[in-house]
Order: sequence, then structure tokens, then C-alpha cells
Amino acid sequence: MRIVGIDPGYGRTGYGVIELTGNRLRPLEFGLIETSTKLSMEKRLLQIYDSLLEIFSRRKPESLALEELFFSRNVTTGIGVSQARGVVLLAAAQTGLQVAEYKPVQIKQSITGYGKAEKQQIQEMVRMFLGLQDVPKPDDVADALAVAITHAHMVPYLSKLGQL
Amino acid sequence: MRIVGIDPGYGRTGYGVIELTGNRLRPLEFGLIETSTKLSMEKRLLQIYDSLLEIFSRRKPESLALEELFFSRNVTTGIGVSQARGVVLLAAAQTGLQVAEYKPVQIKQSITGYGKAEKQQIQEMVRMFLGLQDVPKPDDVADALAVAITHAHMVPYLSKLGQL
Repeated sequence: MRIVGIDPGYGRTGYGVIELTGNRLRPLEFGLIETSTKLSMEKRLLQIYDSLLEIFSRRKPESLALEELFFSRNVTTGIGVSQARGVVLLAAAQTGLQVAEYKPVQIKQSITGYGKAEKQQIQEMVRMFLGLQDVPKPDDVADALAVAITHAHMVPYLSKLGQL
Repeated sequence: MRIVGIDPGYGRTGYGVIELTGNRLRPLEFGLIETSTKLSMEKRLLQIYDSLLEIFSRRKPESLALEELFFSRNVTTGIGVSQARGVVLLAAAQTGLQVAEYKPVQIKQSITGYGKAEKQQIQEMVRMFLGLQDVPKPDDVADALAVAITHAHMVPYLSKLGQL
């Protein structure tokens, strides 16, 4: 099973495609979609959308995982992030991907076994789970891989529940 | 010149296409894109997107106007609205529409001459500007037409500034 994790943003969208075979995880591709601050918001969204469709068609994931969004601090940034998130969800629907959302605490729990883990611990575990030499950079990419791994951990339970 | 005004929402997206000839305004088409609460968020976004592309290709607007978004009350609704807004902006970028955003106070000022106008006054002026028998319903549609008219009022100034 192939899972793509996404950490959406209008400036930087992290993505990571992983493959789950039995209980083995393998990274297929991960990276960052960066958009220029010189572009209008709608052109930045188009760039994210086009890049995602290209990645989906190349890597053929079956499901897409993202962090549940909730605002607290910067509301204006939140609008931009949500707009980017809308485009991510649209691309998922068009490609027929199943969408799964996880709360930050679920991701921390699933990756480190501890719901209040620090960013560094999570990133180190992401590196280990995927057998990578180095922690994936920047944070957006590590976060995208973390939510993809979280979904991979859920697959056996979701299968039993008939939700996959 | 043809302008489409949009009032985005994941449950209801109001739209209105108007034509500006000299200083005459004419409504071409207006209505509501409603999505079912039974659908997942990504499928609702896809429905909005498909409907918009269909309207744009049929009515061929050159620019798209929407209200500037800022959150205050319901943050969770705000995320959903922003996601729908992202899809609207994407559809605009793909169709090559110029995007214009207006603050609520600018819309009120432009439509009624008074920045603190009540909703009813605005709706009545929208009806008069477009020579309609009745006020367009529901509010989402009237709001979409109001921002389209606001943009139409700006066209002479934008032309002078070389921004059109």
C-alpha cells in the first residue's frame, strides 16, 4: 500500500510517499513544493496543485494523510494554509485517494509512543522508521512523512474495521 | 467586460456573473452551488470546483471578485470556508481570470455609498443595479453579486491605473 503524507502551506508544502509491505515501511519519494512570494496567491495554489497531481500520477498512492488543522496563533497565516489545504484535498478527490486526518497528539503518540514528544524525537523516529541516513529536511518534509507513517500504523486497524 | 463574483463556502457557494458595457450592468447568471453534508470534505470541494469550471467555461468571465476573508467568530467554519476559497482561487488561476478582493466595508461603500450599510440596503441596491424584479436569494447569491458589482465600479479606476 502506498501512502502520501502532506504538510500543506502556500509557501511550502512538504510531501512524502511511503510504501507499506506487510509491516515494512519504505520511503519512495519526499520533498518540498516551494512557491515564489512574487506570485499571486492563486498562482501559488495552482503551482501546488500541478505539482501534487504530477507526484500522484508518478507514484500512485492509494491514500493521503494530513494533520488535522486548528487555528490558534496567526489567523491570517491560517487562511492561507487552509486555502492550500483545500487544493490538496481537491487533488486527492480528483485522483480518487482516500483521505485520513490525524491530530498532532495522535501523530506524536503513533511515532514515538508519547503524545507530548518533542519535534526532534519525532524526526529521529521518522528517520529510523524509514531507514534513512539523515533526518529529512526541512521540517515540512519530516512532518509530511510523520503523518504518512501514522497512517501506515493505522492500516491494520482500519482494515479490521472494514474502512480500507 | 464580464465579472464573476463568488461568495465561497463548503456547504454553499454563491456566484453571480455580470456584464459591464460602458457603464451599464447586466446580470448574465447567478445561483448557488450546494454540496451535500453526506459527502466528505474533499468530495464537496471537488463538486464546487467542477461547477465553477463549468460556469466559467460557459460564461467566459475575465475577472473574479471576492470578499477579503478574515476570521473572528467560528474558527472551524473559517477553515472550511478557506479551503473552499482555495479551490475557487485555483479554478480562477486555471481559467486565467484576474482576481480582485474587496473588504466588506469597501463593498458596502461601493454599493450603498455608506460603509456601515445594513444587509437589506445592500441587497436592495444589488437588485436595482442589476434591474432585477426581486432581491436575489439566498444571501450567498446576493453577496456574490454585490462583490461583482463592486469590482465593476472599480473598473474605470483600475483601467486608468493600467491594472486591467
